[in-house]
Amino acid sequence: MARFFFKSQDISGDGIHIRDVAHVRALRLRIGDELTLCDGAGTDFRCRLASLGADFALAEIAGQSPSRGEPSVRLSVFLAYAKGERLEYAVQKCVELGAAEFFLFPSERTVSTPDGRALEKKLARLAAISESAAEQSGRGIIPDVSACESFESAVITAKSSDLPLFFYENEKNLTLRDAFSENSAPKSVAIVTGAEGGFTPVEAAIATQHGLRSVSLGARILRCDTAPIAAAAAVMYITGNM
Amino acid sequence: MARFFFKSQDISGDGIHIRDVAHVRALRLRIGDELTLCDGAGTDFRCRLASLGADFALAEIAGQSPSRGEPSVRLSVFLAYAKGERLEYAVQKCVELGAAEFFLFPSERTVSTPDGRALEKKLARLAAISESAAEQSGRGIIPDVSACESFESAVITAKSSDLPLFFYENEKNLTLRDAFSENSAPKSVAIVTGAEGGFTPVEAAIATQHGLRSVSLGARILRCDTAPIAAAAAVMYITGNM
Repeated sequence: MARFFFKSQDISGDGIHIRDVAHVRALRLRIGDELTLCDGAGTDFRCRLASLGADFALAEIAGQSPSRGEPSVRLSVFLAYAKGERLEYAVQKCVELGAAEFFLFPSERTVSTPDGRALEKKLARLAAISESAAEQSGRGIIPDVSACESFESAVITAKSSDLPLFFYENEKNLTLRDAFSENSAPKSVAIVTGAEGGFTPVEAAIATQHGLRSVSLGARILRCDTAPIAAAAAVMYITGNM
Repeated sequence: MARFFFKSQDISGDGIHIRDVAHVRALRLRIGDELTLCDGAGTDFRCRLASLGADFALAEIAGQSPSRGEPSVRLSVFLAYAKGERLEYAVQKCVELGAAEFFLFPSERTVSTPDGRALEKKLARLAAISESAAEQSGRGIIPDVSACESFESAVITAKSSDLPLFFYENEKNLTLRDAFSENSAPKSVAIVTGAEGGFTPVEAAIATQHGLRSVSLGARILRCDTAPIAAAAAVMYITGNM
């Protein structure tokens, strides 16, 4: 069924005004067709298309229920800046898997850290990817994408999660399973993954000093866009959300 | 450390001849530098670059050991034909995660099934992606990519695995966890995922008639390139390989 996000100011006494009229037309929806409108705060509205003009579309509300696409765990994904396409791919896939929010950060092995106008543009592009992945996968929220100023500020933000995990290629002892056996039912999990080339020993030391758990993703070397997706999938599996 | 695959005919009394001389030069390797050469059959050779010419490169063998990048479970990945880029992503990521082999197959919702020359080209391109992902991630084998003639032949091939899993969007009962609780230590696992739009009820019926376990990947709708990656990551986690 067609699915759109709306903003609270789009609701009126008549129903919900859909902003993306072009999308409604592209899907060839007709008057009376059912569709789901989500408020982006975890509630789905079951609707019927009530009227459709050249530049407006109005949906009549038939009922509401909590969005089924929200996992029981709050997953925050921290991504070191990497080449554009890799970040985009990681954000899209992690939204589908159930991530709640994203933070980008610079790391020692980051090749280039965007700032000013370039950063604004990157955040806007990733926000659009997040919204479309959320719509397509049936999420109840649109995960935010924001930027941390430094590696350390990313680590400090991550540590407010119940279980903050730092994925480090040189970690030989602790596995994801070990980390979850120490804290088996976290309400929130953070995953922090590196750029091409991973993290440096100094960064790993800073992360563990702040209380992050340094964990391995196994014997194979994962690319910087594969690691967050694999970690997100495993977290969703472990917490009973997949 | 630099890592290459070689073929058995590349070994001589002097050492191992590296075919991809351009790659050796691109990595700026010098005489005496250490590198790993893998036979593609699970053995790594610790080597030193012994000589390097315009069109040849020879490595001296210093020792050998089993490749550390091979998981304990044999994972076969069955992918319905999808748009080119999506298959390429899925193959690259699943090789990094430890897949042993790939089978492509047509399904009812496949938009276009390549044959003849187009199929040959697609298989060659995916084989090259598999090889480079295997090299980069430290695998001990290069996973094969081949094609099944029909949906049913894919299902029949999949069922030779100890635990053949069919990922079906409309499956509401069985989860991945349930499937593994019935068979907790499979030596081989097959994962079968659909094209854009997933599988039809008729296909799901055929798969379960053949003994495949129809399982869900959770409440969120995953794209056709996300599902195999998420399933592969979960299988590697469950079997203690991640």
